[in-house]
Amino acid sequence: MKLPELADIQAAHSRIRPFIHWTPVMSSKQLNAIFGCELFFKCENFQKVGAFKFRGATNAVLSLTEEEKRRGVVTHSSGNHAAALALAARMNGVKANIVMPDNAPVVKKNAVAGYGAEITFCKPTLQAREEATRIIIAKMGATLVHPYDNYNVICGQGTAALELLSEKSDLEIVIAPVGGGGLMSGTSTCVKGIDNRIQVIGAEPVNADDAYKSFISGTIVPSVNPVTVADGLLTSLSELTFAIIRKNVDKIITAKEESIIECMLLVWERMKIVIEPSSATVLAIVKENPDLFRGKKIGLIISGGNVDFRKLPF
Amino acid sequence: MKLPELADIQAAHSRIRPFIHWTPVMSSKQLNAIFGCELFFKCENFQKVGAFKFRGATNAVLSLTEEEKRRGVVTHSSGNHAAALALAARMNGVKANIVMPDNAPVVKKNAVAGYGAEITFCKPTLQAREEATRIIIAKMGATLVHPYDNYNVICGQGTAALELLSEKSDLEIVIAPVGGGGLMSGTSTCVKGIDNRIQVIGAEPVNADDAYKSFISGTIVPSVNPVTVADGLLTSLSELTFAIIRKNVDKIITAKEESIIECMLLVWERMKIVIEPSSATVLAIVKENPDLFRGKKIGLIISGGNVDFRKLPF
Repeated sequence: MKLPELADIQAAHSRIRPFIHWTPVMSSKQLNAIFGCELFFKCENFQKVGAFKFRGATNAVLSLTEEEKRRGVVTHSSGNHAAALALAARMNGVKANIVMPDNAPVVKKNAVAGYGAEITFCKPTLQAREEATRIIIAKMGATLVHPYDNYNVICGQGTAALELLSEKSDLEIVIAPVGGGGLMSGTSTCVKGIDNRIQVIGAEPVNADDAYKSFISGTIVPSVNPVTVADGLLTSLSELTFAIIRKNVDKIITAKEESIIECMLLVWERMKIVIEPSSATVLAIVKENPDLFRGKKIGLIISGGNVDFRKLPF
Repeated sequence: MKLPELADIQAAHSRIRPFIHWTPVMSSKQLNAIFGCELFFKCENFQKVGAFKFRGATNAVLSLTEEEKRRGVVTHSSGNHAAALALAARMNGVKANIVMPDNAPVVKKNAVAGYGAEITFCKPTLQAREEATRIIIAKMGATLVHPYDNYNVICGQGTAALELLSEKSDLEIVIAPVGGGGLMSGTSTCVKGIDNRIQVIGAEPVNADDAYKSFISGTIVPSVNPVTVADGLLTSLSELTFAIIRKNVDKIITAKEESIIECMLLVWERMKIVIEPSSATVLAIVKENPDLFRGKKIGLIISGGNVDFRKLPF
């Protein structure tokens, strides 16, 4: 299994640069004082479609051959990756087909349709969604762009850390959230490629701790129906992301639900930016482990800002 | 009555520059598409204490004589101005005394106390608060720094527009919210001083439309117990702010409560930044009057981002 390297992430960044936002790195004296360390937030909530997912999707679309571009792309997702792939495809004149469960929230259907993708609805089971995807691939010859089990997607996600380190080269620790492991894979490959001495830590909800368990045990332990407020972190690692994480990540730390909610609110209140619960997980592990982080310069990958404001957890 | 001029605002900016944040100007393609114009948000929600008020308070503190600095400052407020004056005073080694109604929310008391100000509690009436303020002035010789009826405060508030126009010189319209008129006075003085052709418009909730009525009738018409979600815009104009606004402002437009709430949510959702309802008023008048703003380049002063997240209006 070929694992990505720093050069792949650098190449991805050159490729996607004209299409993405170079998002700001923000800091807050108040939060630094509260946690006793220097925090640098890489704000992918300001990325297009409101999440880092646009980086990976764009890199995947731009890496297609001309023939593949003509046939289009397909994915099954109802979250940020679906919107990201829809927009990345449209910006490059590529057809996108998104397989979604028919019970997906209307707001998500509208977002994806708004970016011009074709939506194929299916029953809300893994079987139904894989079957629907297979049919589209067979019929159109479309290329599957998996949300995280995809080399080009992983390289694209790593470009957020590349920008972060190009602005803040003296970080001692970089923390990213872990769901399926795409962001964590890209981030850790990038950070270790640039400076092996920088610690790379994954943050995961204790209620969806498959990466933690897999990392500790050395074998993939998938989450089974996890329930957490961090709804972007429900998915489990793939063979590829697990291999990359084992190689590059120093540690995975879990956070309690109440810490995640508290840290999300804290960032909204003090920094005046909207981050989603999955993003707050990175700050939550800092909060729960003060001895580990005291006095350090820490980069935090804020994965996104897509929140349902009518269902806030506080 | 001496009205401030552009040079006063420029001088204020040089004075306060080392203490304030030069806040970013943000834009959103999505919002531009929705409203059919080009919107540039001057984000004072990212200012210290979360509001433009820190500019005016800092300018007032820095404009004191050494003797006045030794005697300290006083104000009566339970809102952003209180926190702003407390921090501005502390950063300059000046004692601040804040008169607050004893029924002020605990979170506001804590904020002001957190910045090291002394708090004098009084009964929640105008009489009691003025009496308490008088006593402090008599006893300490402290200088009253009124939230808006103050020349130096007004000049400080105008520096947000100065930064905005230094970054975006081709604006055709600048909109600011109107409460007591401090921000509107500083903004309009600055904008008209730089380029008389730029239209300056005040935005006010229809439920607290004293400035609108005063502007139309040519005489101050105070609001009586106004009720609006835009809780930073409850106060009425003073003689000074009314004189400046009559001279420099082209138009005052009111917005309905539901537009204010809708626009606040829209900015949170699409721009991923937290703005307070008072700030959303500027966008709400754009929404309600599409013919007036279509195709224009518009600067919007976003006054602040201090929101009670447990009492959201949506």
